[in-house]
Parts: sequence; structure tokens; C-alpha cells
Amino acid sequence: MITDVKKAAELLKSNDDFLILSHANPDGDTLGCAYGLCGMLQKMGKRAKVMCADEIAPRMEFLRDTVIQQNFEEKTIVSVDVADRKLLGDLDAVYGGRIFLAIDHHESRQEFAKYTLVDSDAAAACELIFQIAEEMNAQLDGEIASCLYTGLATDTGCFKYSNTTSRTHIIAAKLMAYEFDVSGINYKLFDMKSKGRLELEQAITQGMEFFCDDRVAVVWLTTELMDRFNGRVDSEDFNGLASLPRQVEGVIIGATVKQKGPATFKISVRTAEPINAGSVCALFGGGGHARAAGCTIEGSIEFVKAKLLPVFEKALKANE
Amino acid sequence: MITDVKKAAELLKSNDDFLILSHANPDGDTLGCAYGLCGMLQKMGKRAKVMCADEIAPRMEFLRDTVIQQNFEEKTIVSVDVADRKLLGDLDAVYGGRIFLAIDHHESRQEFAKYTLVDSDAAAACELIFQIAEEMNAQLDGEIASCLYTGLATDTGCFKYSNTTSRTHIIAAKLMAYEFDVSGINYKLFDMKSKGRLELEQAITQGMEFFCDDRVAVVWLTTELMDRFNGRVDSEDFNGLASLPRQVEGVIIGATVKQKGPATFKISVRTAEPINAGSVCALFGGGGHARAAGCTIEGSIEFVKAKLLPVFEKALKANE
Ligand SMILES: [Mn+2]
Ligand SMILES: [Mn+2]
Repeated sequence: MITDVKKAAELLKSNDDFLILSHANPDGDTLGCAYGLCGMLQKMGKRAKVMCADEIAPRMEFLRDTVIQQNFEEKTIVSVDVADRKLLGDLDAVYGGRIFLAIDHHESRQEFAKYTLVDSDAAAACELIFQIAEEMNAQLDGEIASCLYTGLATDTGCFKYSNTTSRTHIIAAKLMAYEFDVSGINYKLFDMKSKGRLELEQAITQGMEFFCDDRVAVVWLTTELMDRFNGRVDSEDFNGLASLPRQVEGVIIGATVKQKGPATFKISVRTAEPINAGSVCALFGGGGHARAAGCTIEGSIEFVKAKLLPVFEKALKANE
Repeated sequence: MITDVKKAAELLKSNDDFLILSHANPDGDTLGCAYGLCGMLQKMGKRAKVMCADEIAPRMEFLRDTVIQQNFEEKTIVSVDVADRKLLGDLDAVYGGRIFLAIDHHESRQEFAKYTLVDSDAAAACELIFQIAEEMNAQLDGEIASCLYTGLATDTGCFKYSNTTSRTHIIAAKLMAYEFDVSGINYKLFDMKSKGRLELEQAITQGMEFFCDDRVAVVWLTTELMDRFNGRVDSEDFNGLASLPRQVEGVIIGATVKQKGPATFKISVRTAEPINAGSVCALFGGGGHARAAGCTIEGSIEFVKAKLLPVFEKALKANE
């Protein structure tokens, strides 16, 4: 059943013994929601704990440390920032079928919970947690505020992307009324790089190829290259590389080609207006959004290149 | 005479024929203030124009295009984001002595204008322009809002740095009520890199040296390296490199050493808590802030290294 902020607040107030679930391969939004909500409920005198199928990256461990994990049998299961049961990872089999309340902001989502609060205008699911907090008149503190802030910052690239709204900034302003280390969090989220990641970026950038008068840039993450960095980087260090090619001035289409198997390549496409990344990827059976999309192509590197480039060229020509 | 927002608003309302001056080597804050204020005054039926001693970097040219430059003899000169007359560059000789109103947010500043509005709690001078606009009941539009937003984003690293306050976010929220291309501006300010800049960063990162158990990182911008990139990068591309070494996980002190002459080196130091960059640089006759400071050392590269490293080591030891 689709519900609203007011009703979601009531549901949380009138229940207890909460298990809050984050999505697998967790990001700052799902963790910020989970630990922020957990802290809030505990402050209301309720019992609450958080679970996630995968480990938390070191840069986000501070979120976990904002709450004391309590031991009890869960009665009320809440999922946060989870668009699909499957995204719970290994937790789906155990809890996926009995989720009481799902709080999320993804446009295309599956209804799997008894109650679903969804607002795709929210830049981050943490915006919804904050609205619920206001509705519940919940007491916040610096630690809860740091969790919710982390969600906002993560999903908006620190208020940089087009999903940022006036509301996002207003919530950030209200959160900053509590004391927490804003610049320290942002350093961890956005600026800090491991030595291995720095070297990885170097290697990838060195192999960047330009086409169509430098309006297309492609980088290759071959298994050979990834093996070379094995042990020197965390798996986390392979995230967020898709934005590298589009950073180059004049590049309208940036593609990151990641080798998934001997002859399987996953392609992430990032575009500038007016090129629609989703439409481009749809031609290969993939999909996504206007500015960011993905698809998979089977074949050799040469085959992938021979398939992609004419499509990119055509898309550029069609929009000239 | 030190003045406040209310009085500054009155001064602007009761005068006309404005010349607004940005500081030399202009950044997004000084330009955002200048063009935002210019647009605002023009919308009030006044005459206003902007001058700056140096050229505007291509990525910020959109600010200039928000207003129509008018031709008239200036009666009222206003400086924005200018902490010292000298920072007007070549315009100082002509206008520095007859500035009517200076609007600024720098902590250490020289009083050089008839009226000075200064608030060092403001993350950007654009915060003050916005407050003046509210006080004047000025009509804003998307173009004016885009100018003021650019100032906020520039001086806070897109709301990332510790100078960001609740007020900064509230102003951003109010500005975003007008229509302008937020993500496009942020792409230009923060993500877009020229091909040359990308190669320059590669070369610099490749030469990064680590000391003191990887807690110190140093990069070298020798004249030889800069000459190698001559013609392939804009002078603008040599800006903002000082933050590179500190990005590496675990680095507490990051130094960027830029060669200014055969035996003259300018050192930019960035530190994490608790190391005070200003105190470190003061030992070499330089200075600055707790997290960012600079100094100049005369001698060979080897001499610079031999001078710097023991000081860095001592600072780390003293704070262990
Ligand atoms: Mn999210
Ligand atoms: Mn400024």
C-alpha cells in the first residue's frame, strides 16, 4: 500500500523492535537512512538495529559508529533506499517477504512491502527520513544529523547534480544546526583516494581514447588491467570511474567499458545534453536515464568498439 | 567606515551609475557578486557596469553574459570580494582611491573604501550580495540567481568545505527557486577538465613523493614541467593543484612546490587536523590559515626538500 510521510511517521511511532535494512553494496544514502533512523528510534526509547548484506566501505564506517547495535528479536522490518527486494542481496531470502515499511526515492521501483513511502522528487532517501523525523517531532543530534547529511551529499554529489532541489538545501541547512564534521565527511566521501585508486585512475586515464573530434571518450577496464591492481586496491576503488571520460572538456559522450568475462563487456555511458544515454544503450538492450545509462555487449574488445562507435557517431550527427 | 547590510542596501538604493570592480585573477565569487549585483541594479532601473583587471576564464564566461554592459560615466564605485586595493590589479591605480562601498568576506582585510561591509562568517561574498538584495527587496531572476549561486559554490567547493553554514544552504535554497542550470554550472566549475589539464595532473601525480610513512606527500611543479605543458594548457590549468597531494588517503601534510625562478620556489601547504599549515609556513616567513598556507623558499630543489621535510616531520611528531 502506498503511504505518505504522515502515515509513515505514525507507523514508526506505533511500532517497536525495528530491523532496518540497507541495500547490498551499500552507499551513503542507504546507510545514512538506516543509521539515522536507527538512532532516532532509539532516542525515542524504542529498540532498533541495522542490517546490510555487504560490508561497509571504510570511508563510511563512521555511520555505523553513530548507534549502539542492540540485540533483540525484530518485530518491524523497514527497508530504506531499496528499490527492489533483490537489491537486499543475501538478506532478501530471510527478510524480503516480510517488510513492513519501505522508504525509497527511486523512480522505477517494485512494491514489495506492506506499506511503501516513495517520493522520486527526493534527491536522496534521507530527505524522506528527515521529513518523517519532523513529522514525528523526533529529537535529532549531531550523530543522526551526520547520517542524514551523508545521504544527501552522497546522492547529489555534494549538491552538484541536477536532482538537488531547494528542499535538499533546506534540509541540509536544518541538519547543520546540529554539530558534526561536515567538511570531514565530505573529504571522506569525495576527495579522499587510496594510493591504489590514484594509480588506477592514472592507468585508466592513460588509456583513454578519443573519437569523433574528441567529442567521444572511452576508457577500458580490462580484466588484465584490473588483475594488475588486484591487492593494491579495494573493490570499492573500482566504483565511480564512469564519470572520468565525461570530465574532459568537449566530451559529449563518455563511455567506460568494463570487462566482465573473456568476451563480456559492461558499458557505462554518460552524456551531455542533448544526447540521451538511455536511448543509446537501449540499442544494445540496455537502458537507464538521459544522462547515465548502461548496456552489455558480448564479443571481443574490437567487436565492442566496432559496435559502439558508429552508434555514438550517429547520435552526435542526429543532434548537430 | 564599517557599515551593515541595511545601510549598504540604502547606499545602493540612493545612488546610481555604478561601476562594480572584481579582484584581479577573478574567481567565481568576485564575478558572481559583480554580475549578480550589476543585473540587480539594472533591474531596478539604474545604470551599472562591471570591470576586472584580468580576463575571465572560459568556464566562467557565462556570468558576464548575464548582463548587458552599459556605457556611461561612473559615479558610484563598488568593489566586491576585494580584501585589499592591490588585489584590484591594474584597476587599482585608476579606481582604488575612490571606492565608495566595499563588500567583502575576508578575515584579514584593509579598509580602503568610504563604506565597508564585511562579514567573515559569510562563506562567500555572494552571501552578502544576497542579503543586500533581500534588504533592498530587489527582484531576482534566473540569471542573477545563477551568478550568486556560482559565488557560493566556488568559495565552498560546492558546499563541501568547513566555511559552509546553514545560511549558505538557505541562500542556495532560495536561489534555486529561480530557474537556472545548477548542474551545468557545477560541471563547469568542478568537473570539467581540459585534455591538457588532465595530462598535467597525470604528470604531477606521477612525480608525487611520499615521506614520513606516507603521511607527507609532495608534488613538484618545476619550470621544466610547466614549460613542457606550455601551449597545451591555459594558465588557469595551473590553478587548484595544491589540493592534489592531500587527497591521498592517510596524507596529513600535502605540499605543492611551484618553481617561480631558477632558485625560487613557492610552497603551498594543505594539512589535516591537528597540523596547523599556517604555523608550519610561518617558520619560512610565510603564513595563511590552519588548513591552507604558503611560503617561499630560495635555493635549489634539494635545498627546499632538505628544509621542508624536517619541519614536516617535527610537526607530525609534535602532534602524535
Ligand atoms: Mn538513494
Ligand atoms: Mn570570496
